Amino acid sequence: MAQMNYLTQCTFDFGALAQTPRVLKGLGVARPFVVTDPGLKANGLLDRLLAALGEAPAGVYADTPANPTESASAAAAAQYRDTRADGIVALGGGSSMDLAKAVGLMVSHEGPFERLGATQRGMRFITKIPPLLAVPTTAGTGSEVSPGAVVILDNGRKETFVSPYLVPAAAICDPDLTLGLPPLLTAATGMDAMTHCIEAVLTPVVHPPAEAIGLDGAERAMTWLERAVKDGGDRDARWHMMMASFEGALAFAKGLGAVHGLSHALGRIQDLKLHHGTLNAVILPHSLAMIGDAAPEKFARLRRALGLAPNGDLPQAIADLNARLKLPGSLSAMGVTEAHWPAARDYAVSDLATLSNAVPFDSEKYDALFRRAL
Amino acid sequence: MAQMNYLTQCTFDFGALAQTPRVLKGLGVARPFVVTDPGLKANGLLDRLLAALGEAPAGVYADTPANPTESASAAAAAQYRDTRADGIVALGGGSSMDLAKAVGLMVSHEGPFERLGATQRGMRFITKIPPLLAVPTTAGTGSEVSPGAVVILDNGRKETFVSPYLVPAAAICDPDLTLGLPPLLTAATGMDAMTHCIEAVLTPVVHPPAEAIGLDGAERAMTWLERAVKDGGDRDARWHMMMASFEGALAFAKGLGAVHGLSHALGRIQDLKLHHGTLNAVILPHSLAMIGDAAPEKFARLRRALGLAPNGDLPQAIADLNARLKLPGSLSAMGVTEAHWPAARDYAVSDLATLSNAVPFDSEKYDALFRRAL
Repeated sequence: MAQMNYLTQCTFDFGALAQTPRVLKGLGVARPFVVTDPGLKANGLLDRLLAALGEAPAGVYADTPANPTESASAAAAAQYRDTRADGIVALGGGSSMDLAKAVGLMVSHEGPFERLGATQRGMRFITKIPPLLAVPTTAGTGSEVSPGAVVILDNGRKETFVSPYLVPAAAICDPDLTLGLPPLLTAATGMDAMTHCIEAVLTPVVHPPAEAIGLDGAERAMTWLERAVKDGGDRDARWHMMMASFEGALAFAKGLGAVHGLSHALGRIQDLKLHHGTLNAVILPHSLAMIGDAAPEKFARLRRALGLAPNGDLPQAIADLNARLKLPGSLSAMGVTEAHWPAARDYAVSDLATLSNAVPFDSEKYDALFRRAL
Repeated sequence: MAQMNYLTQCTFDFGALAQTPRVLKGLGVARPFVVTDPGLKANGLLDRLLAALGEAPAGVYADTPANPTESASAAAAAQYRDTRADGIVALGGGSSMDLAKAVGLMVSHEGPFERLGATQRGMRFITKIPPLLAVPTTAGTGSEVSPGAVVILDNGRKETFVSPYLVPAAAICDPDLTLGLPPLLTAATGMDAMTHCIEAVLTPVVHPPAEAIGLDGAERAMTWLERAVKDGGDRDARWHMMMASFEGALAFAKGLGAVHGLSHALGRIQDLKLHHGTLNAVILPHSLAMIGDAAPEKFARLRRALGLAPNGDLPQAIADLNARLKLPGSLSAMGVTEAHWPAARDYAVSDLATLSNAVPFDSEKYDALFRRAL
């Protein structure tokens, strides 16, 4: 059982779910409140968590929407208070973990939720939230070790909340929980992890340990993602993809880049409901092609990690991987059109991730990236 | 300026020393107590720290011995209490940092100091110590991010103290402070960092992020250590060696091995006063040769990180590096004889690092390692 304590105190291995009572005890949580989504209630994973807990939790909120909203978070927070819970267990993918972080903020911070948002420079108001244990059921987002949460506000705006206090106090990463993930979701979430690793390596922010972890995660995803997609029951592949996901989020402690800027912008298009990981996968080769010569040393290290020849074509290698994973080859294939761009463009330019891109990215650069990926 | 927050909140770059007031403020320290050694008082580095502080600290203890002792720690702790200090700044190499950790323990824990030692399973008694800011002046030990301290007790026994609470709350790593290190000390401390990285990679404990950091640190040391030794004023080399040292200690969150077991054992020989890093350097090739075929995948990754051919001779590469660094080629050359072995042997076998060695190591294995290295 791997015990890792960079940022999050993480217990990682097959069967780690059984450690839930021990980990909660270590956090001083006696009355956990579980946050999850309808899919995990339906497919039995919630029941497995409840069985692992032994005693009934203080409460369960199983209505997390695909994209967490302020109103859903408020409903869960009200339930948290009513049940006199003293900590949160988030079971799920990025949505459940982000909603759990929002609940943690709401039950411990006064005033309008919105003022805590990153665009309001809300980080300075954010302090301690109740102990949060994250139990991921996908391998990609890495929310179990990330300081961020994305929530759609009541006013319709998609807001990011960022603070070191939002890094879950503990995580239980049990690859058993991902064995049932369907191939397409495995591919899309896996490419999310790959994108975290690669963008984190490429940002000019200096953080060599995070860069090393990103390279390792990228190598791991390149080696194992196809196997996890081809055979969902491949336990080794599931273990390594969950580790790549964890490593991706450790790595992006140093920042992300324009793939995420554009992906966040397009993810806000309400009528399309595009998957974040799939967007990242489609955009990544084009962002890499645009960075190219500006980051020769980082490209060399990435080629080495991904098993390419010293002069290998990195963008093409990612495009080829996408094709083998049967992910879409373009934004058009996902339903995006030129008409979506004007509204998304400004959002991309102002996204937090844009600030740490490998090369400066302005509106014109985003125009080019969008058109390439379209 | 790199900001890294795995385990320790670290500010790292040339000129980082100037950030000392900001970092202390962040830790809530208003009356810092400085722990350093006579050499740093003599060579002006203490004065540079005092100048960076701006106002006078609560107190200064500048009598740290080459190997920290319980009595020196007690003297410093008494001074800490007398000056009503509320935090510690450790300026120096491993000795000052370890003594500062001992002071932190003494001023916050009741009862005999000895009971807190690792051999007494003292970790369970260790709780919060006053905020500790570590400012390393060598590049090797990595104590600024490690959970351990080694102190010679009043009863003559060398004891290790280990607890997550002993990881310094913050570190300021300023490669400027290492520009004046003489070549031999640069080489010996640098090989300490290299040994941390390599032994951490090789231990079977599963912690992929730490392994990735260890590989990166080993690559960095292989690339830059010779340059730092040949030209102490090579700023790039100093930067990278300080980073390799930091990475080495992040990596050994996953454990160390028999090189450290034997090195700790021989380091206790009072009349020889052997340097820990030099011992590690001399022993490392022999430990690697004994592990060899038992860790083929780890060896392959290390060869790749160190720039060797896929079938390159890893132990020989380290021995060659030692020779180029003008480090001793054997324990005999350091003054160790067969007569020292009986007393050291049991200590090596029971050393904490032995538990996490790449392959199980008993008395016979240590006999073989000692004779090879002799």
